[in-house]
Amino acid sequence: MAERQEVSSSEGTPASDAYPRKILEYMEGFLISKTVFSSCELGVFDVLLAAERPLSAEEISQEIGASLDGTQRLLAACTGLQLLNTHQDNGQVLYSNTEQASVYLTRSSPVSLYQSIQYSSRTIYLCWHYLTDAVREGRNQYEKAFGVSSNDLFQALYRSDEEMVKFMQLMNSIWNICGKDVVTAFDLLPFNIICDLGGCSGALAKQCTSAYPECTVTIFDLPKVVYTSREHFVTEANQRISFHEGDFFKDPLPDADLYILARILHDWTDERCIELLSKVYKVCKPGGAVLLVEALLHEDGSGPVTVQLYSLNMLVQTEGRERTAAQYASLLAAAGFTGIQHRLTGKIYDAVLGHKET
Amino acid sequence: MAERQEVSSSEGTPASDAYPRKILEYMEGFLISKTVFSSCELGVFDVLLAAERPLSAEEISQEIGASLDGTQRLLAACTGLQLLNTHQDNGQVLYSNTEQASVYLTRSSPVSLYQSIQYSSRTIYLCWHYLTDAVREGRNQYEKAFGVSSNDLFQALYRSDEEMVKFMQLMNSIWNICGKDVVTAFDLLPFNIICDLGGCSGALAKQCTSAYPECTVTIFDLPKVVYTSREHFVTEANQRISFHEGDFFKDPLPDADLYILARILHDWTDERCIELLSKVYKVCKPGGAVLLVEALLHEDGSGPVTVQLYSLNMLVQTEGRERTAAQYASLLAAAGFTGIQHRLTGKIYDAVLGHKET
Repeated sequence: MAERQEVSSSEGTPASDAYPRKILEYMEGFLISKTVFSSCELGVFDVLLAAERPLSAEEISQEIGASLDGTQRLLAACTGLQLLNTHQDNGQVLYSNTEQASVYLTRSSPVSLYQSIQYSSRTIYLCWHYLTDAVREGRNQYEKAFGVSSNDLFQALYRSDEEMVKFMQLMNSIWNICGKDVVTAFDLLPFNIICDLGGCSGALAKQCTSAYPECTVTIFDLPKVVYTSREHFVTEANQRISFHEGDFFKDPLPDADLYILARILHDWTDERCIELLSKVYKVCKPGGAVLLVEALLHEDGSGPVTVQLYSLNMLVQTEGRERTAAQYASLLAAAGFTGIQHRLTGKIYDAVLGHKET
Repeated sequence: MAERQEVSSSEGTPASDAYPRKILEYMEGFLISKTVFSSCELGVFDVLLAAERPLSAEEISQEIGASLDGTQRLLAACTGLQLLNTHQDNGQVLYSNTEQASVYLTRSSPVSLYQSIQYSSRTIYLCWHYLTDAVREGRNQYEKAFGVSSNDLFQALYRSDEEMVKFMQLMNSIWNICGKDVVTAFDLLPFNIICDLGGCSGALAKQCTSAYPECTVTIFDLPKVVYTSREHFVTEANQRISFHEGDFFKDPLPDADLYILARILHDWTDERCIELLSKVYKVCKPGGAVLLVEALLHEDGSGPVTVQLYSLNMLVQTEGRERTAAQYASLLAAAGFTGIQHRLTGKIYDAVLGHKET
């Protein structure tokens, strides 16, 4: 009955030029993101995990409290995206999670991306509706997106307790996936007293204490972040992690062998970065070091495209940018650090290490 | 200085399971879409086309009236997305369009996706912010997204003259790319008098008159659409294309050998589709036919993922859905049509043909 007329899709051939397959894919990127976001938010993957057997669209729609029609379409799209498997059962279609969906899209998984997804869906997605304005004006769009002034960046980011917890959960879920790689990119064994500046929910501190059995980590962050971190993220039982309240631009920093700044510098201008790094350099013990954890741009501008997109995200949401290893090296050098090296992890976040001479 | 630690990315291996590369890609889909949308909207590709030589970020930022910093980041991301080429010129980076960007992302190109992109960016992107609600409620989200009641679908879609022209331009830009394939999927030579129901801007009518030198096409659409189409899209010079004003649910349809319904049925429920098709069947000449142009879902629910996403889009934006060939065949059969066949084009839109017996 049907005749399939295949069209070549190999890159760079005339057939490809005659049909903009790649551009059409880019155009539907937001449909894919939101399909994943809504499926998570409605708890599709949680329901399938809990059921421990494949479920029908009817069963899933009842469990998640959504219309059958809408649920069927969502499940179909998740199947096409290879997040769900389908099974035939007496003419009825049943659905189950793929391995990746179970591991990364269920709320209870230790490496869940659920919180990251919630933040992307509710906050970043809306901010990016104003990307054109951000590029035109060269500044973030909190005012248009959320009616919040962004004179004080973290006052805007933490505009409510709820937003702050969401932001902290976002940080948490990223380090569950990339944290081990960034703390083991360099051998940090020589550094026993570690201070994690802007250490937030403590996810990276936990990666440090787990990778380096001798170290202790002080999480330095704003008082309300420390309060929330103690309440929600770091248990008293973890005696090698402690807290220090303060604003790292205004208040004195604790003594340490190693200062970690993970996704801190990308929020700020070069000037403020050098101001902060100089302050770190002064208080750092001779022989000590600073570890920057950031997504690094290639020196030649060719990519990685994820980091180029993140740099636009920093424009839309912060005062900062993503940088190349050479740009971070030059900020570190301006503050006095020497012997600067970087390591790529192959995942999103990389590591840059600078030393204070003995 | 750097050591690259590559991580295997092949599907299904443990290394892939240990890092959710595919899910992270899905999560950044909306960043990619908006990067392309903003670059088009700001005219980056138009400026580079007009210049006829590679330009620096400074030159481009001045031409598009945007901040240098924002422009640099946008150009970097477009480079990573392979929409721009970079050239080194005495230590300065210069940019030029890739072939695909010149052909599909410039406003003046005959196969420009510019209008499609504008509609996706301004209308669909915002509607999709409410996907979770649409799935939960099983209905479109015009009210939340735009404060417009959707009791009358096309009153909502055409809520202002500006929105209507944008919608018409969207239709136009899709048929510039897929139109020839859908009108030649079947041999329509036997049908000389064609009526394109909801023919909108006339892009598909033009494809018909160009592929079939003997035919004439009547575009049937709402009076204000016909007015706009005459004013903006179809010149008097094209004597083989005429117009007929009306509402295809309420008013009599003109006589014809072939009725085309291109992306019409996907807006409506099964009941309304059968109502419309029955009306077409009645007025259709014996030996005549109806051609449906729609994006077809696979019968087994496995894809195509683009069409599964479109079906969610129909939920968010209309009263309809995307369907399989068998579902369209059953709607056509219910209205009386026989000898139903479908053809896949390999692009987004496919064709289904049903006959009225002589």
